Order: sequence, then C-alpha cells, then structure tokens
Amino acid sequence: MNGKKAAGIKALDEIREGMTIGLGTGSTVYFFLEALAEKVAAGFTITGVATSQQTIDLAKKWKIPMRTLNEVSTIDVTIDGADEFDPQLNGIKGGGGALLFEKLVAKSSKKRIWIVDERKKVEQLGRFPLPVEVVPFGWKHVESFLVNKGYNPKLRLTADERPYVTDAHHYILDLHLQTISDPEALANELDHLTGVVEHGLFLGMTEKVLVGAPNGTVETFEKK
Amino acid sequence: MNGKKAAGIKALDEIREGMTIGLGTGSTVYFFLEALAEKVAAGFTITGVATSQQTIDLAKKWKIPMRTLNEVSTIDVTIDGADEFDPQLNGIKGGGGALLFEKLVAKSSKKRIWIVDERKKVEQLGRFPLPVEVVPFGWKHVESFLVNKGYNPKLRLTADERPYVTDAHHYILDLHLQTISDPEALANELDHLTGVVEHGLFLGMTEKVLVGAPNGTVETFEKK
Repeated sequence: MNGKKAAGIKALDEIREGMTIGLGTGSTVYFFLEALAEKVAAGFTITGVATSQQTIDLAKKWKIPMRTLNEVSTIDVTIDGADEFDPQLNGIKGGGGALLFEKLVAKSSKKRIWIVDERKKVEQLGRFPLPVEVVPFGWKHVESFLVNKGYNPKLRLTADERPYVTDAHHYILDLHLQTISDPEALANELDHLTGVVEHGLFLGMTEKVLVGAPNGTVETFEKK
Repeated sequence: MNGKKAAGIKALDEIREGMTIGLGTGSTVYFFLEALAEKVAAGFTITGVATSQQTIDLAKKWKIPMRTLNEVSTIDVTIDGADEFDPQLNGIKGGGGALLFEKLVAKSSKKRIWIVDERKKVEQLGRFPLPVEVVPFGWKHVESFLVNKGYNPKLRLTADERPYVTDAHHYILDLHLQTISDPEALANELDHLTGVVEHGLFLGMTEKVLVGAPNGTVETFEKK
C-alpha cells in the first residue's frame, strides 16, 4: 500500500451516515472516493459536493450521490488533498488546478481534513510552487507585477503548450518561491491584487491532516 | 446636447497622437468613442484597449485600431465612465457589468479620467448599488455571507430572468447599501472574500473627472 492510499482509506473513519461531504481533487482523494464508493454501493447514504470536474466524473462513474455547492446550505466535512502543509497546518493547494473550487467548498465546511502522503509535510511552505488563479484578460500585467516582486511566476501550460484553463475559465501562474517566510502577508497581498481570483495558500483552513506512510500506517496531526 | 455627450467630447482634449488609450464602457464612453472615431477617420493615429466586448464591437464598427491589454505594456490614458463619484474622486463602477476589465485596464494606465453627467456626483457613495463580481460555483454561499452582513445583495439578472454573465464568465451581486460610510474598509473586506473576483469600488483610481451638464458645459474635478 502506498501512503496516499493509506490516508485515503483512513479518512473513511471521519464519515457518518447522512453527512454532506466535500470531495476534494487529486491522486490521494482518488483512493478516498474509491473506498467511499464501496460503502455507498453497500447502502451507506451520503451526499457529495465536488471541487472539480475531475471529481464529478469519478463520483458519477462510482455512483456517489452528488449535489452542487449552490444546492447545499452547509457541508459537514470536506476531505481533500494538499501539496504541502506546515506544523501550523497551513498549506499550499492547487497543484491539480482546483484551488478555487476547493477553497470555496472548504469555506462552506464545518470541518476540513487533508489526506496526504508523508512527502507533503514541510517545516516551511514554499518549495511547492504556489498556484495563483488569474483572469486571462490582462494576465500579463499581473505576471509583470509578480516578476517585479521577485515571485518568479510561470504560466501553467498544458502538454501541448497552451495555457492551462481552470474549471472556472481562468489561468494559473505558479510562483516559484522556494520559501514563504510570511504566508499571511503574502496571502493578504495576493487577495488585494486586481486580476487575481484566488491563490493556493490555505491558512487556518484545516482541522486535521492524515499522513499516510508507505508501510500503510497513518499519522494524524490535529490543530492545537 | 446632453451632459454625457458634452463630457465625452471634452475628453478628446486629453488625447495626443500616438497614445495607447484605455477605452471604457457605457453610454457616456459611447460619445467619446464616436468623437474619437471621427479623428481617426481624419488620419489621427492612436491605439485603443477595450474594457468590454461592447466596446470592442463599437471600436470595430468605427475602425478604431485596437490591441488587447495583454498586447500592450502600458496605457497612456484611460477614458471611462462611472456610476457615482465623491469629493475625494472615489467611485462606484460596474453598472454596465464591465468592472473587472475596467479595473484591470485602469490599473495598467498612467492616467485615468472619468466622464460622467452631473447626476453621478454624490457627497457619499452607496446610493448606486455596488456591483460585486463573483464566481458562479458556490455563489449562493457568498450571497448568504453578504446577506448576513446586511449588505442586501441581489443577483443581477438578464431581461429573461437568467443570471447576467460577465465577459469573464462570472455573476454579479449588486449590493443595495444606500450609504457606504467607509469605502476602504468595505473594499478590503470584499477583496478578502473567497468567490469574489472583483468589486465596483474604485478608490484612488482616477486623476480627473469631467462632468457634463445638460447645457453643454463641462466642469472638471482634479485630484488634490
């Protein structure tokens, strides 16, 4: 068993009958969805709310009952991945491009749990490129601003070298920062920037992180 | 002559040969574009950068040479309308739905001039509903938050009662506030809200306002 699968299966312990569950995006969430689908097939009743087209497609394939975020008033718990998390349980998300919908679902959730393998645990955020979702109109001016700040942005491209387009019709600039000494200050700066729709800094937005190891054990980190 | 036309024509005085000009959106800008097109037809060389599909269409019809915001490094001057402006030259924009692109063009401009009729001059902002551009995914949760804050949001609809969709594929929630006692604080709050792409508060983002009166005179307000 790999660490991702171990964490994904462990997250099932957080689910109760009748819950509305935010369903994240990515390779670790895949294993959670697979395990959840087995329970659903056995008669367990839940409602899922997806954070991406990719997750909608998986849920459909596996017959997990779904509603959209606009159709539910609140979400009991959201299970999602992360690209990095630090000792304060702050994180970087968006490597898979779903940061905007993931943040919207997280904001509407009573409890948020990240499932990751052990390579995602860091002392300081920033080695993973920070995704910044931007409006295509005038994105080059946002890029220039970020270049001038020394944030080293790179436009995310598809395999055939076109701009990657998010589910919400935006582009992504990945900031190659190496270290983020003050995540709060950077988040605040990006929040104020015209043309930036959202960024991948998720600060104070999870209560628990389940970290899977290659041997199948799962370590739990909880918010103090 | 109406006030809008008077202000629109007066704005021609701000234009010099060879300039790159941000072209706003709306019924007052219409008159500016019409007058500008006459000069262009007579051999005057400028480049326009539009803030909406509506303005692109007009520029095309009137043969004004255009480039996109991504194709220019800077804009010499932007001529745009406004829905309200106060004595500090802060304003509300977005009644026409183009606030996001208008703000992006304004941010890339060396000089910004608003052209309005005299009904747009107010002592305090807020009587005009404040447009907030939101991501359609989960917009109802943003609406709930704004309702709880007492901001009285109304989803903007088209004539056939569907959600109005902006040029950037977003919805608009119009906040019926009546008065905005602290525009900076409100702008800051909206900037931080997940799901909000942009809002119609343009603070410190114009250097001059040309106000046309029904008798054809134009009063000028400049930043102190």
